Amino acid sequence: MTTEAAPQLELRAVPGLPLVRAGDDLAALLLDGLGRSGIALRAGDVLVVAQKIVSKAEGRLVDLAAVVPSARARELAPLVNKDPRLVELVLGESRRVVRAARDVLIVEHRLGFVMANAGVDQSNVAAPGQGEYALLLPLDPDASARRLRAAIAARAGVAPGIVINDSFGRAWRVGTVGVAIGAAGVPALRDLRGTPDLLGRTLRVTVVGHADEIAAAASLLMGQAAEGCPAVLVRGLTSGPEQPAAVLLRPPAEDLFR
Amino acid sequence: MTTEAAPQLELRAVPGLPLVRAGDDLAALLLDGLGRSGIALRAGDVLVVAQKIVSKAEGRLVDLAAVVPSARARELAPLVNKDPRLVELVLGESRRVVRAARDVLIVEHRLGFVMANAGVDQSNVAAPGQGEYALLLPLDPDASARRLRAAIAARAGVAPGIVINDSFGRAWRVGTVGVAIGAAGVPALRDLRGTPDLLGRTLRVTVVGHADEIAAAASLLMGQAAEGCPAVLVRGLTSGPEQPAAVLLRPPAEDLFR
Repeated sequence: MTTEAAPQLELRAVPGLPLVRAGDDLAALLLDGLGRSGIALRAGDVLVVAQKIVSKAEGRLVDLAAVVPSARARELAPLVNKDPRLVELVLGESRRVVRAARDVLIVEHRLGFVMANAGVDQSNVAAPGQGEYALLLPLDPDASARRLRAAIAARAGVAPGIVINDSFGRAWRVGTVGVAIGAAGVPALRDLRGTPDLLGRTLRVTVVGHADEIAAAASLLMGQAAEGCPAVLVRGLTSGPEQPAAVLLRPPAEDLFR
Repeated sequence: MTTEAAPQLELRAVPGLPLVRAGDDLAALLLDGLGRSGIALRAGDVLVVAQKIVSKAEGRLVDLAAVVPSARARELAPLVNKDPRLVELVLGESRRVVRAARDVLIVEHRLGFVMANAGVDQSNVAAPGQGEYALLLPLDPDASARRLRAAIAARAGVAPGIVINDSFGRAWRVGTVGVAIGAAGVPALRDLRGTPDLLGRTLRVTVVGHADEIAAAASLLMGQAAEGCPAVLVRGLTSGPEQPAAVLLRPPAEDLFR
């Protein structure tokens, strides 16, 4: 039987990453992990890195004992059923509250993400000593992605695309999906407007959230690893004009749902 | 150098599918396509199939010339800047209008999806003769997925998981992403609540929209094929309790954004 070459994608978990601490060199850790699994980076590869390890490396861990909740945080905390100190951190990371209800605090993050709890996370956070800690998003995830890309290129001689992903809930649908909060060296959006379809009719509106689809694909593998897998290599994506993940944010004036 | 086996996923476009027509046997077409690329189905494989070819095979193509717009459709059409006959089809497929604005008509589809235009699509639709046609979603995509799974199992002796995907816009974010509108033989949600994280702390809420992430991953490959690729094989996913895509719909009473 003759076979036809078909487009394909390969996703591989980067194994054996240690628990990341503030100041760690993520580029070195990722390249060590790739080396252990015998993977040499190639041009066109994209590395998807979980927000948690980027935040940890950047020292975004906050000791809850040092947080003094404001009056607003203390007022909101019983309504949303959360620790007032956590609510204080969420408000500090946010432009405004979009929805507050029992167990739900959805905000517009200072960077524009509409998300639960401003991405402030208490799970899987390495706590030095016995205290309670929370982890904030990176200060500027697109900048984090650019720095990581440059650091890997300097060491490996190949600049992979970088996507920093996190898990977001959605309006209307149950369950979180991986979403791109930072990107470098990848087209965050793919604009197919004006491309004729198979019948020569021009597609009317098709702008694809490409980096979000990459983030979701990697999340499949991150979620099914027994011990957690904070980095995934994606091979086989087509290239396109580089854009940061910030282009995935719908401007509030064009948004019908906040 | 010793290497460690790392979890991995493989996605392959199913090549050479013909334009699908009403009554076509999708199971046969997909198995032919897989055969041409030398892929033998294995237990645990998931086939992601674009909504368009499922709808076409099920005869969901509508001749716009036969559509008589209601008064409500004629009233709404100039507001949303769409053909009144298309608006009529959208309303006929919907429970209610969620948002209407210039170029935007977001509805709650009769199956519960909150989506633009009730999924009614004018692009890439094979038009017999010179008329204008539109394509509606399958009547019951979860049932379509179950039938396709059974038909493939009957022919191939292996029952792959099936995800029927479509591209949805999102609140708050620019760009469409692949979403699961039908599923069979896969866990549409993965419930990680109660799973201890790396530090033994119990994760508080982590329900993952697994089938949506599968749909998004396949959409990456569907979008980058030069000639369109309406089916993708995914290999390497872990299994779990089977659930239909309907479980991905947030009940309206629990939804803060309708």
